[in-house]
Amino acid sequence: MSRGTNKAGLDPPQQPEAEVGGIAVDRLRSIIERVERLEEERRALSGDIKDIFAEAKSAGFDVKVIRQLISLRKKEPAEVEEQETLLDLYRRALGM
Amino acid sequence: MSRGTNKAGLDPPQQPEAEVGGIAVDRLRSIIERVERLEEERRALSGDIKDIFAEAKSAGFDVKVIRQLISLRKKEPAEVEEQETLLDLYRRALGM
Amino acid sequence: MSRGTNKAGLDPPQQPEAEVGGIAVDRLRSIIERVERLEEERRALSGDIKDIFAEAKSAGFDVKVIRQLISLRKKEPAEVEEQETLLDLYRRALGM
Amino acid sequence: MSRGTNKAGLDPPQQPEAEVGGIAVDRLRSIIERVERLEEERRALSGDIKDIFAEAKSAGFDVKVIRQLISLRKKEPAEVEEQETLLDLYRRALGM
Repeated sequence: MSRGTNKAGLDPPQQPEAEVGGIAVDRLRSIIERVERLEEERRALSGDIKDIFAEAKSAGFDVKVIRQLISLRKKEPAEVEEQETLLDLYRRALGM
Repeated sequence: MSRGTNKAGLDPPQQPEAEVGGIAVDRLRSIIERVERLEEERRALSGDIKDIFAEAKSAGFDVKVIRQLISLRKKEPAEVEEQETLLDLYRRALGM
Repeated sequence: MSRGTNKAGLDPPQQPEAEVGGIAVDRLRSIIERVERLEEERRALSGDIKDIFAEAKSAGFDVKVIRQLISLRKKEPAEVEEQETLLDLYRRALGM
Repeated sequence: MSRGTNKAGLDPPQQPEAEVGGIAVDRLRSIIERVERLEEERRALSGDIKDIFAEAKSAGFDVKVIRQLISLRKKEPAEVEEQETLLDLYRRALGM
């Protein structure tokens, strides 16, 4: 980023970026707008996911259990296996 | 939901969905895979957002302040104005 | 809330609360200090919980599994039973 | 941690800890019960904090602004000052 005076009308044409108070305005604006756009897309995706769970519920599925299933699928099968064995062991130890 | 075998090619046309243990398997699989795909896209977006903030930091911007700015831009200007006035009032009341 | 001047020593005894800019200062201060104290206690509790999990880990327990166990214990046994049955069913339906 | 009889009166005194399936049962139970107790206390504190904010709202305060104030009070004054200066600068740069 080149740096230079930014008093109105004084910027030479080769100056690639306007600054206000030492702030590279276009760069800052670009950063903010890109973040806002991505956050908006992320919100839309969260909405879509919510819709699918609502669809699952209407179709008679148990949404909490589907969430457990998705969480299991993120783990390695060996990790799932080991944790289930341990959970079983701990439950029996506690008489649950 | 009709019940029946779903071996490749053997489903009679009127049989809309295979079930295992009373579960509409294709429907369940579709729900889970769509959620997983959307969650994956959401994770990718979060990574992109993180990258932009890293870029902002490298460019010399204060990332916390950019976050505050983005949060302000989500509110109505009148709401921002009112909260800033109140915050100022409360701070002066407390001698902060 | 009564309104009135609060210049040092000038408050008549019947004035229940000092105000600055229309703000009931003592009330505001009390609210903020109580919240801060409770938040501090809450942070301390979170630290204690973390310490216990560290102790559990040192003692050879699997902390993730202990968390699962604690989460199970929060639910009604009938709910746990039903969710486990469904999870099993869904997993078999998906061939997991 | 030596602990006394486990099976009704039948544990020999040299048995330091009852185990079920290799699990130190009393230790596990102690860990879980302590975590549950602390989590319960933490939930109670969260409830108390919520009550204070409800009280603040009834007393005519703006709860969001009180939260901002509490968040400001957690930071060093110099940090608050610097962030406010930067926020102001960024806003002016963007014409906000």
